[in-house]
Amino acid sequence: MFVLAASTPGVLPPGLLSLGQLLASLLVIYIASKLGGELALRLKQPAVLGELVAGLAVGVSGLKLIDPAQPVLLLLAQVGVTLLLFEIGLESELRGLLKLGVQATATALVGMVVPFVLGYGVMKATGAAELVAVFVGASSTATSIGISARVLSELGYLRRTEGQIILGAAVLDDILGVVILSVVASIAAGGSLEWTGVARIVVSSLLFLVGAIVIGNRFMPFFLAIVRRLRTRGELLTASLVFAFALAWLAEQLGSAAIIGAFAAGLVLCETDKRHDLEAQLRPVTDFFLPIFFITVGAGVNLALLADRQALLLALALSALAVVGKLVCGWAAIGVKADKLVIGAGMVPRGEVGLVFASVGLATGVLSGANHTAVVIMVILTTFFGPLLLGALLRRQKRSDLAA
Amino acid sequence: MFVLAASTPGVLPPGLLSLGQLLASLLVIYIASKLGGELALRLKQPAVLGELVAGLAVGVSGLKLIDPAQPVLLLLAQVGVTLLLFEIGLESELRGLLKLGVQATATALVGMVVPFVLGYGVMKATGAAELVAVFVGASSTATSIGISARVLSELGYLRRTEGQIILGAAVLDDILGVVILSVVASIAAGGSLEWTGVARIVVSSLLFLVGAIVIGNRFMPFFLAIVRRLRTRGELLTASLVFAFALAWLAEQLGSAAIIGAFAAGLVLCETDKRHDLEAQLRPVTDFFLPIFFITVGAGVNLALLADRQALLLALALSALAVVGKLVCGWAAIGVKADKLVIGAGMVPRGEVGLVFASVGLATGVLSGANHTAVVIMVILTTFFGPLLLGALLRRQKRSDLAA
Repeated sequence: MFVLAASTPGVLPPGLLSLGQLLASLLVIYIASKLGGELALRLKQPAVLGELVAGLAVGVSGLKLIDPAQPVLLLLAQVGVTLLLFEIGLESELRGLLKLGVQATATALVGMVVPFVLGYGVMKATGAAELVAVFVGASSTATSIGISARVLSELGYLRRTEGQIILGAAVLDDILGVVILSVVASIAAGGSLEWTGVARIVVSSLLFLVGAIVIGNRFMPFFLAIVRRLRTRGELLTASLVFAFALAWLAEQLGSAAIIGAFAAGLVLCETDKRHDLEAQLRPVTDFFLPIFFITVGAGVNLALLADRQALLLALALSALAVVGKLVCGWAAIGVKADKLVIGAGMVPRGEVGLVFASVGLATGVLSGANHTAVVIMVILTTFFGPLLLGALLRRQKRSDLAA
Repeated sequence: MFVLAASTPGVLPPGLLSLGQLLASLLVIYIASKLGGELALRLKQPAVLGELVAGLAVGVSGLKLIDPAQPVLLLLAQVGVTLLLFEIGLESELRGLLKLGVQATATALVGMVVPFVLGYGVMKATGAAELVAVFVGASSTATSIGISARVLSELGYLRRTEGQIILGAAVLDDILGVVILSVVASIAAGGSLEWTGVARIVVSSLLFLVGAIVIGNRFMPFFLAIVRRLRTRGELLTASLVFAFALAWLAEQLGSAAIIGAFAAGLVLCETDKRHDLEAQLRPVTDFFLPIFFITVGAGVNLALLADRQALLLALALSALAVVGKLVCGWAAIGVKADKLVIGAGMVPRGEVGLVFASVGLATGVLSGANHTAVVIMVILTTFFGPLLLGALLRRQKRSDLAA
C-alpha cells in the first residue's frame, strides 16, 4: 500500500517515475536484455551485443517501450556501470595490471592520438572550422570501458594479457577523457586553455588512483576486522559497497570519474580472501542494474539519423577512421606476446563516453546539423562493431588455442 | 566518465539526484543502517529497530544528512519493500498460510475494527468533527507489513504459527487498507460513498491474489523450462524478477498494491526446487535496496512535533489505544496453539502505511494542526514500539522453549 504515497494527491515532478512506471520499465528492460543476450549467444556473438540490439528494438528507433532519456533510468544505469567496474576490478589482478602498465599506457596514448589526428584531418579536409575539427577529433578518442570489459569478462579473457592491457588502457583513456572533454568544452566556450587546470586534473586523477590503491591496501586489515565483527545480514556486501561508493564518490569530487573509484575499490578488494564471497554477492546486484545501462544505450540510438545522406557519408568516413585509429593502437603494446589486433579491437567501442562528447558538442554549439549527426552515428557504429569484432577475434584465438 | 552526462550542461530537474549525490546518500544510509542494526543486536533488540533509530539520527530530527522526502530515494525505498515482500513470500509456505487463513482473516478484521472504534471514539470524546474522527480511526487500522516481517524473518519466526498468522493478516490488512483509504479519501473530497466501487476493489484484489497464485503455479513448469534454457548470466534472478515485477505491476494496475503482487510471486516460486538458489541471489539485491526504506522511514520522523503539548497528549492517548487495539486482535486467532500476544504485537507498527493515511488526511484538508501531528506521532510511536515489543516477546518465548 506504500505505493499510494507516490500516486496520491501530488503529481510527480517532471522526470520522476512512479513505482508502477519503474516496474514497467524494468520489465521491458529485463525481457529485452534476456531475449537479445540469448539470441546473440546462439548466433555466437557476445551477449552484450544482443542487449544493445534489443535496446535498439525497444527504444526510440523501434517499439518506443523505453524512454532512453528518462533521468531515473539514466541514474540507475550509471549505478549499473559503477557496479560493473567494481566487479571488473574485483575480477582483475593488480599485479597483472601493473606489470603491463607500460604497454597499457602506450596503447592508451596511441589510441587517443591517432583517432584524434584522423578525425581532425577528415573534418579539415571537408573544410570544417578549426574548432569543429578539434571537437570531432576529441570525440574519436573515447573508449567505452563498460562494453569491452563485459565482452572480455563474458568470454573469460579479463585476466589474459590482452584483457589486462585493454582494461588498463581503457581506464587511462577514461581519466584522460575527462581532461580532454573539459579542455575542448572550455575552448568551445571561448575560454583560453589553462594548462595549470589541465595538469591539476591529470595529476589529481592519477594520484587518486595510486593513492586509493596504496591507502586502500593498508586499510584492508582494518576493514576485514570490521566485517568479521558484523552480525547483521548482508554485512560483507554492505561494507564493500560503502568502500566502493566512498571511493567512487571521492573520485568524482576530485574531478575524475566515479567508475575509476569503483574500479580501484575492486582492485583493492580482489587482493583479500573475501574476494570470491563478495563476487558471488555482488553479481546479483550488478545483474539487477546493468541491463538498464545496455538497454538504454541501445534504446537511445536514433536510426532516423541515417536518412541524412551527407551526415551518413561523413559518418561512414569517420567510423572507418575511428575503427582504424583504435585498431593500430594495439601495436603500441610492445614487448609482450599478445594479439595486437585483439587489443585494438577492445578499444574500438566509443559507447556512452562518445555520446557525452557529442552532447557537450551540441550543447556548446560547436557541433550541429550533419556534423553532430555524423559523430553520433560514428559512436553507434563503433559501439556495435567493437563487440562484434572482439568476439570474433577471441573465438578465433580460442579455436587456434584448442588446435595447438 | 559517463557520469559527466548528468553534470554537463543541463541542470538536474527538481527532485532528481546526480550520481554523486545518490552515492553520497547511499553511503549515509548504509553506514547508518549498519551502525544502528549492529548496536541494536548488541542491546538484544531487532536490527530493524536500530535501523529506524539510526534513520532518525541522520534525518530531519538529527544530522540532516538524508532528505527523507527525496523522490528518487523514496522510489528506491519502494523497490526495497517490493523486493522484501517477494523475499518474504519466498521464505513463507503457501500451505501454512492457507491452513491458518481463517485465523489470519479473523485477526486482520478484529485488528482493523477495534483500532478504528477506539481511534474514532477518542476523537469524538474530544469533540472532533465526524469526518476527523473517521479519518483518525481509519489511520489506526494500518499495519506495516514490512517492519514486522523483517523482525519475524530476523528472529526465525516467519514459518512458525504466529509468524504465518501475522503475515497473512498483514497482507489482508494491506488489501483492505487500500479500500479504506480510497473510501475515506472520497468521503473527505465530498463524494458520496459508492459501495459498488468499494466492492470492486475488494473483489478484484482478492481475485488477483488467488488468481496469481493458482495461475502462477500452473505457469511454473513453463517458467522453469525457460530458465533452464537460458545461458546468459543471472538467468534465474532476472527471470524471477520479471515474474515478480509483472505481478507487482499488475496488482497495482488492478487498484491493489504492488507488494501484494510481489508477495504472491514469492509464494508461487517458494514451491519450486529453485527456491534456495533464488533466495541466495535475491538477498544481496534486497540488501542493496531495503536499508533505503528503513532509514528514510526513520529519517522522516520530526521530533519537533512533540513540542506541541496538546498534540502530544492526544498522540499519547491515540498511541496507547492503537497498541491496545492491535494487541487484542491476536485473540481472534482461535483454534490454534499460538502466543496471542505475539500475534497482536506483530500487528502494532503502522509504519509507512500509517504515514500514507496521515498525508492523505493532510492533503484533503481533513486533518490539520494538532490532529495531523497527533496521528503522525501515533504512527511513529507504534512503529518503534512494535518491533521492541515483538522482539522482547519472541526472545522470551525462545528462552522458555529452551528451558522446556
